[in-house]
Amino acid sequence: MAEELLIRNVRPAGGEATDVLVRDGKIAAIGAGAAAAGATAFDAGGDLMIPGLVEAHTHLDKSFWGMGWQRHTAGPSLIEKIETERRNRRELKLDPDRQSQRLAGQMVGKGTTHIRSHVDVDTEVGLAGIEGVMAMRERLKDVVDVEIVAFPQSGLLVRPGTLELLDRALALGSEVVGGLDPCAVDRDPKGHLDAIFALSQKYGRPIDIHLHERGEMGAFSMDLILERTRALGMQGKIAISHAFCLGMPDVDHARRLIDELAKERITLVTTAPAASTAPSVMACTKAGVVIAGGSDGVRDSWNPYGMGDMLERAMLVGLRNNFRRDEEVELALDVCTYGGAKVMGLPDYGLSVGCFADLVILPGENLAEAVMARPAERTVVKRGRIVARNGKPVGLDA
Amino acid sequence: MAEELLIRNVRPAGGEATDVLVRDGKIAAIGAGAAAAGATAFDAGGDLMIPGLVEAHTHLDKSFWGMGWQRHTAGPSLIEKIETERRNRRELKLDPDRQSQRLAGQMVGKGTTHIRSHVDVDTEVGLAGIEGVMAMRERLKDVVDVEIVAFPQSGLLVRPGTLELLDRALALGSEVVGGLDPCAVDRDPKGHLDAIFALSQKYGRPIDIHLHERGEMGAFSMDLILERTRALGMQGKIAISHAFCLGMPDVDHARRLIDELAKERITLVTTAPAASTAPSVMACTKAGVVIAGGSDGVRDSWNPYGMGDMLERAMLVGLRNNFRRDEEVELALDVCTYGGAKVMGLPDYGLSVGCFADLVILPGENLAEAVMARPAERTVVKRGRIVARNGKPVGLDA
Ligand SMILES: [Zn+2]
Ligand SMILES: [Zn+2]
Repeated sequence: MAEELLIRNVRPAGGEATDVLVRDGKIAAIGAGAAAAGATAFDAGGDLMIPGLVEAHTHLDKSFWGMGWQRHTAGPSLIEKIETERRNRRELKLDPDRQSQRLAGQMVGKGTTHIRSHVDVDTEVGLAGIEGVMAMRERLKDVVDVEIVAFPQSGLLVRPGTLELLDRALALGSEVVGGLDPCAVDRDPKGHLDAIFALSQKYGRPIDIHLHERGEMGAFSMDLILERTRALGMQGKIAISHAFCLGMPDVDHARRLIDELAKERITLVTTAPAASTAPSVMACTKAGVVIAGGSDGVRDSWNPYGMGDMLERAMLVGLRNNFRRDEEVELALDVCTYGGAKVMGLPDYGLSVGCFADLVILPGENLAEAVMARPAERTVVKRGRIVARNGKPVGLDA
Repeated sequence: MAEELLIRNVRPAGGEATDVLVRDGKIAAIGAGAAAAGATAFDAGGDLMIPGLVEAHTHLDKSFWGMGWQRHTAGPSLIEKIETERRNRRELKLDPDRQSQRLAGQMVGKGTTHIRSHVDVDTEVGLAGIEGVMAMRERLKDVVDVEIVAFPQSGLLVRPGTLELLDRALALGSEVVGGLDPCAVDRDPKGHLDAIFALSQKYGRPIDIHLHERGEMGAFSMDLILERTRALGMQGKIAISHAFCLGMPDVDHARRLIDELAKERITLVTTAPAASTAPSVMACTKAGVVIAGGSDGVRDSWNPYGMGDMLERAMLVGLRNNFRRDEEVELALDVCTYGGAKVMGLPDYGLSVGCFADLVILPGENLAEAVMARPAERTVVKRGRIVARNGKPVGLDA
């Protein structure tokens, strides 16, 4: 018999109150047709319903979540941060399986139903991170969808042996090829990009590259990414995370890059950083560039911030982009829902009949208010099953 | 008989657990001497204790708090925002007394014990805002300290009659003379500043001026403020809110201004905006310029953001200033506690014996974690009385 959940008195996207019938993990009916004799009923009490939040950029494997407060000591440079992290990983015996479950559980409680996690691959940790997160996601497969980016955090060519490990990480089942600052970290932009595009082609997997490089250096790396996307016909397969350079002072140059990204259907992922230049969500959206949101690291040696809450991220996207009008705030939320779904290529995502029943039910008059108030009382539905109540995951050890 | 409260098992500033005895609204003893026979006891269960949060810049009189969601429709320019606001005020019949109590109550629930509120004075609203907030603060005087800045939101000289109203607002008991963008709004920087400095001298009251002007224009206005502070010997009496110009690209110019501010003991108040240039908290602190934090408007026609939570503001200060190390995050919290106390000139503020018992007790391992987690479960003590439990004000109608 089909598994059914009837969500009563709920307001999809803040519209009129209605009933939503979920059958076999998908939205089967909304409104009049949504009655079902045998279905479990959940009374939403007039709450809002939004599609599951999409965490399009995080690092599940190396969070300190649940390990008590770890003093943050890393110096300001990228290299110092990378070194501090490798030391922390050893000294704290960070277990990627355990840590990724802890953080994923927290995220699920906040309404996230899909996660793209970059996972470190280097000559020290080898594939332990990948294997740990793969084991976790198998256990949590009914609770949250996790996609793995094999990520050369410590550099690719500067650390011989990493490329081979990345290759094996893909063979093991990582869905996405990662990359990192081809100029600033690897000191060899051509070599770095040729290597990750080759892996991408070999495995038929998309790319998601961390590009922290600012200004003209980042624009140069972005140009090289555009060239390869064009030459290899990889339109729609490439995501660039951070893309700080798009907030460069030379707005005409940034605008030309944004137009090129739109043409090659390259997507962006942003944390909406307050202390860095960043892509303008409005400029990208207007130009047709899909942009998603992510927390990046949460409570790790890079970043002490974050509660794994993509509704808070929507607020930060709004603040960073000076969004005040309701429709602008709704766009910030879109970045953390539909934008993420597009970047990750999620099928049947949304609030229509036929979509997967990955849903968040929460108090609030409308979408804008939900972003402003970020209420703790969230009920989270994954493929038709309630996986979190009152902001806490159901049946997951922390 | 003296009114006493014994706070047991609490960790002031995240240190060792101890007992704190409060008598007649002040901290009477910490540790061994903190036993008291007749005192009411409150078991903090090992929670953190921080001094009351200080909201050094808000607008209590015109918040929509508690009025349901109001669609945000104002255009991007300053003048459009001012016009939209005046229309909203009429159409929504915003009652400054009621609205200021609603927002102040929310803020108290989040741990704020002191508020500096700018209150609109203009030829349309007259002194109704000032009178409303004064009535509210009289009712709430045992719950929260509210300081009023008489604020010419719609312009001072461009709107004849406003200066006289400002004068009357000060005569009525507003503690601070407000001002606003002498170039951009009043189009007469000399006239504007001469007028507010004259009022300040007439009533012996400090000044807190909104300075949104960016770049060289803001630097020019700031220079004029510095000149008058010097010439009139008003060191330590002037605060500049926002001071966006200090984040100008010409960092040498900004540095010179910061050094001058330090010399004249002019203080700053920041919201740590993510979408604007802003003063660097570290640069100001190192130069000896006191900097406080504020929410600015909360749910009003300027700004749909905010929950009136100064712990969240500390997080935003941290994010804006790229603070990651523990001591940096502690500095962000300092901005929202001690920094505000200094800007407002609060006597006996802090966690030492003899300080007023204005306190927040909340879960958390240490100060940095409190800023990151911003737990909802806060107990707030005002002058030795518990005024909020679990993040909700006690005995206040919303
Ligand atoms: Zn990252
Ligand atoms: Zn203001």
